[in-house]
Amino acid sequence: MKAVVYKGPFQVAVEEVEDPRIEHPNDVIVRITSTAICGSDLHMYEGRTAAEPGIVFGHENLGIVDQCGDGVTSIKKGDRVVMPFNVACGFCKNCAAGYTAFCLTVNPGFAGGAYGYVAMGPYRGGQAEYLRVPFADFNCTKLPPGTEHETDFVLLADIFPTGYHGCELANVSPGETVAVYGGGPVGQMAAYSALLRGASKVFVVDRVPERLQKAEQIGAIPINFEDSDPVEQIKAQTNGEGSDKGVDAVGYQAQSRQSGREEPAVVLNSLVQTVRPTGALGVPGLYVPADPGAPDEHAKQGMLLVAVGKLFEKGMRMGTGQTNVKRYINRLRDLIIEGRAKPSFVVSHELPLEQAPEAYEKFDKRIEGYTKVVLHPHA
Amino acid sequence: MKAVVYKGPFQVAVEEVEDPRIEHPNDVIVRITSTAICGSDLHMYEGRTAAEPGIVFGHENLGIVDQCGDGVTSIKKGDRVVMPFNVACGFCKNCAAGYTAFCLTVNPGFAGGAYGYVAMGPYRGGQAEYLRVPFADFNCTKLPPGTEHETDFVLLADIFPTGYHGCELANVSPGETVAVYGGGPVGQMAAYSALLRGASKVFVVDRVPERLQKAEQIGAIPINFEDSDPVEQIKAQTNGEGSDKGVDAVGYQAQSRQSGREEPAVVLNSLVQTVRPTGALGVPGLYVPADPGAPDEHAKQGMLLVAVGKLFEKGMRMGTGQTNVKRYINRLRDLIIEGRAKPSFVVSHELPLEQAPEAYEKFDKRIEGYTKVVLHPHA
Amino acid sequence: MKAVVYKGPFQVAVEEVEDPRIEHPNDVIVRITSTAICGSDLHMYEGRTAAEPGIVFGHENLGIVDQCGDGVTSIKKGDRVVMPFNVACGFCKNCAAGYTAFCLTVNPGFAGGAYGYVAMGPYRGGQAEYLRVPFADFNCTKLPPGTEHETDFVLLADIFPTGYHGCELANVSPGETVAVYGGGPVGQMAAYSALLRGASKVFVVDRVPERLQKAEQIGAIPINFEDSDPVEQIKAQTNGEGSDKGVDAVGYQAQSRQSGREEPAVVLNSLVQTVRPTGALGVPGLYVPADPGAPDEHAKQGMLLVAVGKLFEKGMRMGTGQTNVKRYINRLRDLIIEGRAKPSFVVSHELPLEQAPEAYEKFDKRIEGYTKVVLHPHA
Amino acid sequence: MKAVVYKGPFQVAVEEVEDPRIEHPNDVIVRITSTAICGSDLHMYEGRTAAEPGIVFGHENLGIVDQCGDGVTSIKKGDRVVMPFNVACGFCKNCAAGYTAFCLTVNPGFAGGAYGYVAMGPYRGGQAEYLRVPFADFNCTKLPPGTEHETDFVLLADIFPTGYHGCELANVSPGETVAVYGGGPVGQMAAYSALLRGASKVFVVDRVPERLQKAEQIGAIPINFEDSDPVEQIKAQTNGEGSDKGVDAVGYQAQSRQSGREEPAVVLNSLVQTVRPTGALGVPGLYVPADPGAPDEHAKQGMLLVAVGKLFEKGMRMGTGQTNVKRYINRLRDLIIEGRAKPSFVVSHELPLEQAPEAYEKFDKRIEGYTKVVLHPHA
Repeated sequence: MKAVVYKGPFQVAVEEVEDPRIEHPNDVIVRITSTAICGSDLHMYEGRTAAEPGIVFGHENLGIVDQCGDGVTSIKKGDRVVMPFNVACGFCKNCAAGYTAFCLTVNPGFAGGAYGYVAMGPYRGGQAEYLRVPFADFNCTKLPPGTEHETDFVLLADIFPTGYHGCELANVSPGETVAVYGGGPVGQMAAYSALLRGASKVFVVDRVPERLQKAEQIGAIPINFEDSDPVEQIKAQTNGEGSDKGVDAVGYQAQSRQSGREEPAVVLNSLVQTVRPTGALGVPGLYVPADPGAPDEHAKQGMLLVAVGKLFEKGMRMGTGQTNVKRYINRLRDLIIEGRAKPSFVVSHELPLEQAPEAYEKFDKRIEGYTKVVLHPHA
Repeated sequence: MKAVVYKGPFQVAVEEVEDPRIEHPNDVIVRITSTAICGSDLHMYEGRTAAEPGIVFGHENLGIVDQCGDGVTSIKKGDRVVMPFNVACGFCKNCAAGYTAFCLTVNPGFAGGAYGYVAMGPYRGGQAEYLRVPFADFNCTKLPPGTEHETDFVLLADIFPTGYHGCELANVSPGETVAVYGGGPVGQMAAYSALLRGASKVFVVDRVPERLQKAEQIGAIPINFEDSDPVEQIKAQTNGEGSDKGVDAVGYQAQSRQSGREEPAVVLNSLVQTVRPTGALGVPGLYVPADPGAPDEHAKQGMLLVAVGKLFEKGMRMGTGQTNVKRYINRLRDLIIEGRAKPSFVVSHELPLEQAPEAYEKFDKRIEGYTKVVLHPHA
Repeated sequence: MKAVVYKGPFQVAVEEVEDPRIEHPNDVIVRITSTAICGSDLHMYEGRTAAEPGIVFGHENLGIVDQCGDGVTSIKKGDRVVMPFNVACGFCKNCAAGYTAFCLTVNPGFAGGAYGYVAMGPYRGGQAEYLRVPFADFNCTKLPPGTEHETDFVLLADIFPTGYHGCELANVSPGETVAVYGGGPVGQMAAYSALLRGASKVFVVDRVPERLQKAEQIGAIPINFEDSDPVEQIKAQTNGEGSDKGVDAVGYQAQSRQSGREEPAVVLNSLVQTVRPTGALGVPGLYVPADPGAPDEHAKQGMLLVAVGKLFEKGMRMGTGQTNVKRYINRLRDLIIEGRAKPSFVVSHELPLEQAPEAYEKFDKRIEGYTKVVLHPHA
Repeated sequence: MKAVVYKGPFQVAVEEVEDPRIEHPNDVIVRITSTAICGSDLHMYEGRTAAEPGIVFGHENLGIVDQCGDGVTSIKKGDRVVMPFNVACGFCKNCAAGYTAFCLTVNPGFAGGAYGYVAMGPYRGGQAEYLRVPFADFNCTKLPPGTEHETDFVLLADIFPTGYHGCELANVSPGETVAVYGGGPVGQMAAYSALLRGASKVFVVDRVPERLQKAEQIGAIPINFEDSDPVEQIKAQTNGEGSDKGVDAVGYQAQSRQSGREEPAVVLNSLVQTVRPTGALGVPGLYVPADPGAPDEHAKQGMLLVAVGKLFEKGMRMGTGQTNVKRYINRLRDLIIEGRAKPSFVVSHELPLEQAPEAYEKFDKRIEGYTKVVLHPHA
């Protein structure tokens, strides 16, 4: 079958690879109809991880079940399913407690697995014609048959739940004000989720005009950090207090407003300034314990200068980490089915699998409006 | 009346000061029978804050109501009361939400007030014969009449709820394992609270033999960090995983095991190593946004090098800040009354007010077993 | 001053009564600009309570502060304020825990107080030109100056938080389906709140066409129980399972669909049928322990036949009781200010105080579209 | 193999039945070493259910894994395991949300399955030499090898988590007072759990002297309801207020103190009287929607006269239903391993399987001290 294969920094190719097959009674094989490129794929694409050439990318996958192992109970051939990006067993103590992003079974020696991602276990990605899904009863989420909402549903694999998780970590509640740093796809999903949860006022901080416009279209208040200090802009719109809650949808590749260079903790520290005492931060934006491309020796080991004194003085709480997609996916799917959520507004391009190399290149450069690409391998 | 007055670094005196008086209809005056010296008083005593000479110290206060303002409803002369160290109004949005440590009324321009503490508002401390208590209906907690449990009850003003808050911030739940860094009074109270909440295994990390013994006596497992890396010691006793939860009862004056020097983030970062993925940290230990005595330029502004990459990878949550005493005080008091909690095991000395100078000196030097001193002004 | 005085069953009059005055340092006097008639006022109006003639009605009050007692801190003459219907002290253990509907101070011998309501303490109602507000710092919620959103804000005193409380008791969460029984003002507010909280599908069960239309206009699905069994209608729209959550916005004066007579538990039991296993019920609709007008001897004592066996089999949870307005009012007010909530869609009439007798009569008979009346005493 | 077979009302026999075998790749066969008789087995034994002769009883099972299906991942032959009484799939929406007592997969047409119980699915009980366990990765909880804590661990299958669930449903928190109605094994476990969770005062209401003594031994306060009204006894020990929380560990076969006859709602209604306003009830005690032996026509359909008016006036919450054992079992097991819980104090008899008929008879009659029997099939 055809798949998107990592060849080295800034290089992917669509190549023939071996077909996946049932390896365990609880496996299914899914014929992929939609698979999205994620901002986190770019970390590998840019050579900013330990990823070796040969990896098949793709952890945002949706398709039709093609084969089922003998032990599979609730899924059958022909079912339309979307797969949480976290591969999880469903029965270890973390999975049973709802922490499916930290499964202790699927990636021995580490808490958590994923498709097509370096160090996240032996699971091939889904930017391909077919995908093997282990523990399929647990890892497949059923969708209504047909093709409706295809680009909404594919976002259930990762970025919609990831944005939502930012709100959950910060316990965003009705009537609250929320500052979301980052207007990329995850930031848009976080702002959108905050509004779905009944926030009274949601700010989206970025500098890219298209992102700020999109934020405004969904009902958020755009904050262009190139105009002036975003902390001051948000305080000015919250009675001088700061927002009740904050979401970091940027992560460690944040850039300083002043210097224009990478400054990995700049968003975290801006949030400490932005959010009012008693507030909380949700941090779905990625931070890593080893970053060879980091700007200094400490950052290379994931050690960042954080305003701990101020954080403590304000009595803030902070929740971090990858989202447990399984925890949210049914409910978010239902919002889409009922027409109350339509997250596909972030999708900029739908392309055949063959155009993956071009899509990676343009998405990485953020040119020609490439903000979120969905590939259709069987289109 | 007599009071403990700060005279300058390493100097306090018991002096005559003006008697407090009813300044507002909601005030009461309390005749202090017990008032404890807190580790945080030592920050001022050591000249490590902006405290000016003349401050009357004391935020852990218990006594008998002596006078009541016209607006006071639920408290009357003769009532035995203990006062949360946080001065709070009870009606601002933070107080109404239970965040009484972040009251917006009592210390204009800042969220939170306290008795006898620099920058925490115009409230004289209670290491004195009498204390004025504002918003008395809200700030007094009634106790059974008499003198029983006097040294247990005085700990309700601060350190028992502070230790308990560490557990609450980390959401310590029955059956969990908990690592408490710091075996001083707050650390002991955190470990004691974790056990009260049904933890299966509680570790207390310190190097002072008396503290480790005390931890063992209450049912915790002592971890002497001079023996070997406490992270490894705790992992060895938790199936190699690390503990479920962690509490930082040390704060910014932490010392490095290796260098023996202050290293303000060493405990935080040890906790990131100690606690397993999906875990949570409670941080009641004090961090400050300005510390002139800090070991480096960043630390002077409360900026510390934190293992954010690892924290995120593990999906950890962290709660910080001073405790909202009012939230816990009734229930902790009831545990004492029913004989199910007896926190006074941490009290090392009971002394008349006059001996305050000596007590400060010895407590600051941690000599002669001074771990927690309760002063009795009217003894 | 003029006030709406209860004269006996089905009779109220606008009469001169003594002006209220400051009785305690923490009192304020509010000049009432808007005061709504509540469905629960009708219980008294119909003679279905122990209310004696002479009571001044009115617990949904908004106005301008006219006088302040000496002990009042945060409120000053000229402030525009709305008062939660619960009179509360702010400092008893129930208030401090957020249960302001169950204040132990303001109505000795009972948990909870209110303005202008039988057995709820000595607090005159606000269907009058002026109102005395005790513990004013706690019981007044500040509003933006001016007259904007007047009919939205007055609903913050009771029915908006009451409907919201129904959702909170049932823990209505994003993506869930919710069945609201009762399309009167509280039911509309419950449905509206469920949608604000991100429910995927909200059903409103009633038989009055205007109520069903209104429900549809706000985005809910109308269920006319005269068409067929509402349980079956809702199951048909929830994959045969029933809804995730349910809200009882009817209470003890529910009428049976079959018999057309009062059957006090019919809504509760319908909800047990309607909601799926693991679900939860919020019951803000009023039930009383003594109802002289009840259809049978047990109901007269508030003893109702409930499907406990089915409730247990389904593992349902149920939350009941009057709402703690203070807990929600700031956040709901902010939603109105930001234009994200506009609850005044339920208001059918705005009238001068003088028309209260006519308004009571028509509202009680549910004629001429009287669904929610706001009186303006100084119009 | 040998198994305990139901022969008809008041009759069980130990008979040869067909050996269980692997029927699905995710099955295991467990060699049972300990299996307890539950009070709920007596409902079937007494002919008070629709159970047909031929059922093999036993849902509290512990043993050693003997065979594994091909799809089993985390369990291997020789592992010592205890099985939650709820049979659950681990992947349906209820299981994924932690409601494993309401699994939608294992017992089609009903939410929830169990071993050896009428209407709970096709799962043979474990009062036998061997047991088939479906979805074994999810339904087996690993124990330390050996035989230590055998009678503590077997209680993890049902009654320890069931008692704990009562506390969880009522959200029993440190410092609270708790009234537990029923001093049988579940009531003892509820009281024990309340103490583990840090309650300040726990009352156990019963009339059997041995039960009351046992309650006292674990630190609870015995309330003999034959002495006088238990509501008044508890109010007298809680400042006249009533307890903060309540647990119903009796269920529908409750007997009236006055009449001595069954009165299915008497415990529920006593709890409404016993618990103070703002309180909560946990109801793990069984109620059923169909009880042919009930004292009246309504009760036969599970319709009981409940003090709804008072429940509402007090703003109480109530949680009901069978426990989701999986949610608690790891943590409760760890408390046993660490020596902080020893629930086996309720076990009165350990017997070979052969003595099951005698054990059922005596346990049903509550004679000769039979309160909790553990059978050892391979002893």
